[in-house]
Amino acid sequence: MDKSWLGTRVVTQIGILVNDIEAVSQAYADFLGVEKPAWSWTDPAEVARTEYNGQPAAGRAKLAFFDCGQLQIELIEPDEQPSTWRDYLNEHGEGPHHIAFVIDGMKEKITLLEKRGMPLAQKGEYTGGRYAYMDATRDLKLWIELLENDK
Amino acid sequence: MDKSWLGTRVVTQIGILVNDIEAVSQAYADFLGVEKPAWSWTDPAEVARTEYNGQPAAGRAKLAFFDCGQLQIELIEPDEQPSTWRDYLNEHGEGPHHIAFVIDGMKEKITLLEKRGMPLAQKGEYTGGRYAYMDATRDLKLWIELLENDK
Repeated sequence: MDKSWLGTRVVTQIGILVNDIEAVSQAYADFLGVEKPAWSWTDPAEVARTEYNGQPAAGRAKLAFFDCGQLQIELIEPDEQPSTWRDYLNEHGEGPHHIAFVIDGMKEKITLLEKRGMPLAQKGEYTGGRYAYMDATRDLKLWIELLENDK
Repeated sequence: MDKSWLGTRVVTQIGILVNDIEAVSQAYADFLGVEKPAWSWTDPAEVARTEYNGQPAAGRAKLAFFDCGQLQIELIEPDEQPSTWRDYLNEHGEGPHHIAFVIDGMKEKITLLEKRGMPLAQKGEYTGGRYAYMDATRDLKLWIELLENDK
């Protein structure tokens, strides 16, 4: 029986905050021997229904993805508006921000993690699913992203 | 043809620096629903033949591992002597430090990465293989660990 809190132990993504997604995407493309992928903006707030620290939030980010086996490397260049990305980048500088797990039952999983000391910081929608960033820095020393994809 | 610099794109490990490996191991064990693994010391300098910034170095660390699908989460609690782990922990605090790739041809791979702006910071031996930490923070915004296992 899987006793993990999320019903999975498979890390699907590592998210890395960067200042210049064009330059860092080119560096990863060279290093990994692949074409530089196009980056794309996260959806605007009215589509993504973004909430940050419990309030509607306008912060967005440019995203680019690289497949590294089971794991995806996600580069994130936030805009200047408040978000978990922008605030962490300002405080800590560029570098790894989170690991992600694909889960079922977003609401229940958020509640369970919050009860266990990993509060929700930001959530939103994307085409085909939704995400939530849980602050696990106290116990796990990083952020956990939950991803739920529509069936 | 694989055009990646390392001959692989598979990330096998994410390394996380911590101050208290007992407490953080327990937190990961709970979160992942597994038994808390025993931690172990890296080999002493005379066995590991550790070099840090080109000089023999006595720094060691406690390590603990968790399997998360293809990826292993490695917790690292360095001792107080200089090492890439101790210096990064002092400067940046707890959190992710590196991603690792299993490679063939350690010497050639180190030379290739150094030529491309990712200098060697630390290397050493472990039972059955050897490792090298390459400073890719300028271009990739994190450290790269190379792991070569004996056949």
